[in-house]
Formats: sequence, structure tokens, C-alpha cells
Amino acid sequence: MSQTLAELGEFGLIERLRADQENGGPVWIGPGDDAAVLSIDGRAVSALDQLVEGVHFRRDWSGPVEVGRKAVAVAVADIEAMGARPLAVLVGLAAPGDLPASWALDCLAGLRQECATASVQLIGGDVSAAERIHLAVTALGETRGQEPVQRSGATVGDLVALRGRLGWAAAGLVVLTRGFRSPRAAVQAHQCPTPPYGAGAEAAMFGATAMIDLSDGLLADLGHVARASGVGIDLDSRALGPGEPVRAVAQAIGRDPLEFVLSGGEDHALVATFPFGQVPQGWDVIGRVEAVGPLGPTVLVDGRAWSGPAGWTHF
Amino acid sequence: MSQTLAELGEFGLIERLRADQENGGPVWIGPGDDAAVLSIDGRAVSALDQLVEGVHFRRDWSGPVEVGRKAVAVAVADIEAMGARPLAVLVGLAAPGDLPASWALDCLAGLRQECATASVQLIGGDVSAAERIHLAVTALGETRGQEPVQRSGATVGDLVALRGRLGWAAAGLVVLTRGFRSPRAAVQAHQCPTPPYGAGAEAAMFGATAMIDLSDGLLADLGHVARASGVGIDLDSRALGPGEPVRAVAQAIGRDPLEFVLSGGEDHALVATFPFGQVPQGWDVIGRVEAVGPLGPTVLVDGRAWSGPAGWTHF
Repeated sequence: MSQTLAELGEFGLIERLRADQENGGPVWIGPGDDAAVLSIDGRAVSALDQLVEGVHFRRDWSGPVEVGRKAVAVAVADIEAMGARPLAVLVGLAAPGDLPASWALDCLAGLRQECATASVQLIGGDVSAAERIHLAVTALGETRGQEPVQRSGATVGDLVALRGRLGWAAAGLVVLTRGFRSPRAAVQAHQCPTPPYGAGAEAAMFGATAMIDLSDGLLADLGHVARASGVGIDLDSRALGPGEPVRAVAQAIGRDPLEFVLSGGEDHALVATFPFGQVPQGWDVIGRVEAVGPLGPTVLVDGRAWSGPAGWTHF
Repeated sequence: MSQTLAELGEFGLIERLRADQENGGPVWIGPGDDAAVLSIDGRAVSALDQLVEGVHFRRDWSGPVEVGRKAVAVAVADIEAMGARPLAVLVGLAAPGDLPASWALDCLAGLRQECATASVQLIGGDVSAAERIHLAVTALGETRGQEPVQRSGATVGDLVALRGRLGWAAAGLVVLTRGFRSPRAAVQAHQCPTPPYGAGAEAAMFGATAMIDLSDGLLADLGHVARASGVGIDLDSRALGPGEPVRAVAQAIGRDPLEFVLSGGEDHALVATFPFGQVPQGWDVIGRVEAVGPLGPTVLVDGRAWSGPAGWTHF
């Protein structure tokens, strides 16, 4: 019989967390004490995100490595969205005692793998029993002298620009829900998003006036920017050309691919507003910021309200 | 019918989280954006803790206010244990959609109440669905120029000193497990610990060489200090006089009160080692640091190994 998490034990897992852990760089004290200590130059940026089994992932649809990677990616994307530099993460893992120890260890490997991709360090965490697997990740970063980019700074005349993918994760979820496993690129996008690491700090440097990462869908998340900034946003549907796997999935189920692009969540692309002429290379202009129209501070598509589904709710 | 959490909705709860939230002090950006921004002078201290329904609390034994308070207390205690000054917390709440909205709102009130007691601000968080209630709290603090107090600095000749209560929470849990509700002080200690806020930074200022907060029990947690420091620790049982409710509970069930004092977890008292003559007022000397004896780096009681139960495991 293979080992369970209960047999590996809390301290066994924490030992693994400590193993191969280098302090250094901004990390003064890493895992293994009561708290971690990190050098931060002036302003600490922090965000907490959760991945819950049966809500955000299913064990038959995502492996432990992907779940670990996704938990880090979604939290670090929030630091990027402030225009800050991510530095470190803390991880809370709660799981049933009869979970195979290999699942927990592979999940830890996934956490580490995404930390390496995002250039952050795993500095601490907590392990607990629970009936279902629950990951809580707090990401920490610093502003490095840049002003944080909030949701509230979008200004009439700004351009709206995108860095990353739209609708891929939602298309992948549809594929899995229907019992299929391809297109593989869409399924992988659901299993683990690929936030454009480094693009947040770049956007801040180029003068982004507002920014958000796309967790609930383009319309839903840009809606937060519109309301916080007191502006209207008009998206150009021609600039939102869906990626190949999104088109394939939409066609297979007889839906408009634009639905995925506008309403699909969990891709954790970054969308930002920039003064005209300041959009950095690698960002695609997808719309513009306008004065508030008769519909209030909202997001339009080609000048009209979008009538399809917009984002999803967690309850 | 009263409202459920699903009816209140994720954004309804987040609105409540944002309400009455003052920025100011160290908080540049509080709840409501992708991430919070906090002024930190040089070194950020961070720790994540979890409270899981059915593992750390039961809804029939603890009310939502106590659960919220405890979630903040256990996380902030870790910042205290580094000798740092707590500043802020992030909260992840996962709960079933059919949870009464009043439970979630009262829990939020408890979180705020303990934040006020600990002089920290609630700067952000995340809300998710889940089958059982799960709270994850990340506490953030700063070192204010003090060296962090680690577990590894205890030195032969140091005195071991305690600030806070021992065995009260464990006694309260025994009371509840047997279907009783008194002594009330013990039950309350289980429902919500009372860490000695401010004592951690004070200990650092007085030159504490090692410190830990007591989550798993005095023997278990001092065992971490002994191993990390490569020393022996000898506790004086006469200095560990159990509090009145601990004695009452021990007597009622025919156990030695010292068992609760040595092995009971979750009181989140602070225990620290100080050079002789440097123990601050308000701390009780309970033992001394000695050279490693034949039993290795371990904790003795009156010069002998303790034969009772020592601490508890989470799985």
C-alpha cells in the first residue's frame, strides 16, 4: 500500500517544504520558523487566493502538479495586476488524511515549479486536515518605487490593452464537462493558467492608468475598472479574435466564440488602460475608455451592451 | 426565511468587507483592488494559518464571532513570536452557499473585533464556496529595526520565560467534548485564544534569544526550540502552576493538571529564552536552557523526561 498524507504527517510534509529551500535574495527567513521574513523596499503588496476541490478543480480533471501550479499562478497574477514585482508566496494546504502522500508531494512540486516560473520563493505555509482539498496562497510583492496601478485610474481617451489569452480556460472547462480531453491546449489552460509574469511591472513603468487580472471574465472584470474609474469602456470585437482552441470548442458546441472571449474566466490575462501612444509592445489594443454613457459606467462591445452571459458567480 | 451566503453573494460579502474600512496608517490600499499595499520599513514578516470546520472548530461549540476572532489571533500570534510588530491581515473565507448569511457576517465582525484588539487592519481577502467552512488568515508585520527572534538562538544559561496561559484551551475542549459548558473560562479559551499582543516585540527589545508561540503544546513547541538551537531545556514544574479552570477540569476527570499545562495546545501563549537578568516584567520564568544531555536536544521536566502525552497531530 502506498503512503497516505496522515502517514507522511504534518511534519513530514513541512520537512519536504523546507527541503531544498534556499534563503537568499529578498528572503531573510524562509519556511520552518513561526513566520517568514522578507526584505521589502517600502511598500508590500499582498493578495490571498483560494483553490477549493469541487469548486475550482476536480481531481479527475487536474493532476496535483497542475493544481499546485494554478494556486500560485492565480495569487501571483494579483500582484502583477497592481504593477508590482512578485517576490514570495505562503501556502496553506488542507487535505484529507487518506489522501495519497504522493498527491500532496506532487502538489508541492507544482507549487515550486510555478514559483520558479514566476520568479518567486515559497517562504512558508500551514498544513491541516480537511474533508476536501483546499489551497490558500498569499502572494507578496513590492512596488520598487512605482506607483501601484489601481482599478480606479482609467481616464477618458485611454486605450484598453490586453496581455494574455481570453476564453481558453473556459473552453477547456467545457471540454472536460462534456467528457472530452481535447483540444489539449484548452484543457491545459483550465488546469493551469499562464499569467504574463513581468508584464504587470512593465505596464506600470509605461504609465498604465488602471489594471486588473482576468479571473471572472473580460466583461465582468473590466466592469470593475469602469465602475471604480467612473468611465465607460468600449471594446472592439474585431480586436478580440478568439484563439484557435476557443474557436474549435465553440464550433463543436454551436456557440459564438465571442462568448468565451468576453465571459470566460480564469485565464488570468492582464488588461490595462494606457494613455494614447503609451501602450507597450506585446500588448494588444482591444478598446478605449470613454465618457460614461446613458447605461452608466459599464462595458460595451462595438458600442452596444452585450446580451450574452457575463462572468460567473462563486456561490 | 433568513438570507443565505449564496443569496448575499460573493460581492455582497466583499462589499461588507470594504465597508467601514479606513485606509491610513501603514495601509496605502485596503480591500477592493487586486491586492493590498502596505508601508513596511525594510523587512516584512508573514505567516499563514488555517481554521477548518470539524478540525479546529465545531459550529455547535463556537459561534461565528469566536471563530473569526480565533482565526486572526492564531495568525497574528506567529508574527508576535518573531518579535515583530503585527500590521495587517488578509482573510480567505470558504463556506457552503446555504450557510446563513448572518453566520458569515458575524464571523466578519469577529475578524474585525480581533483585528482591533491586536491593533492590525483587515486589508483584503478572498471568498469562495466550499462544503465546510474554512478560514485562511495571513498576518503581516514588520521588524522595526529589531532582529527577528528565531527558534534557533537559545543559548546554554538562558532562562525560559512564559507570557500567557497554559492548558486552558485544552481543558475547554475536554469540557465541550463531554457535553458540558463550564468552567466558562476554559470553554472561552478554546473558542478564542488571547495571545499577549505586544509582548513579542517587547521580548525582542529585551534581547530574547529564541521565541515560539504555543500552538501544539509547551513540550512539543519547546521541543522545536531545543532542536533548532541544539540545546536541552529543563522546565520547573513548580513554576507551571495550572490556572484555576485547568485544575477544576483536571480534577473533574481525574487527570493530573500538569498534563494540560505541558501538552495542551492552542493557547498561543509566547515562550521565549532570555539571557540571565534580561527577563522583562510580566514574563514568568519556567525553566532554563542547558547543554544537550544524553537524551539529545529535548525538553525535560524537573530534570526528567516527561512520560505523558506530548502535543497532538493534525492528521
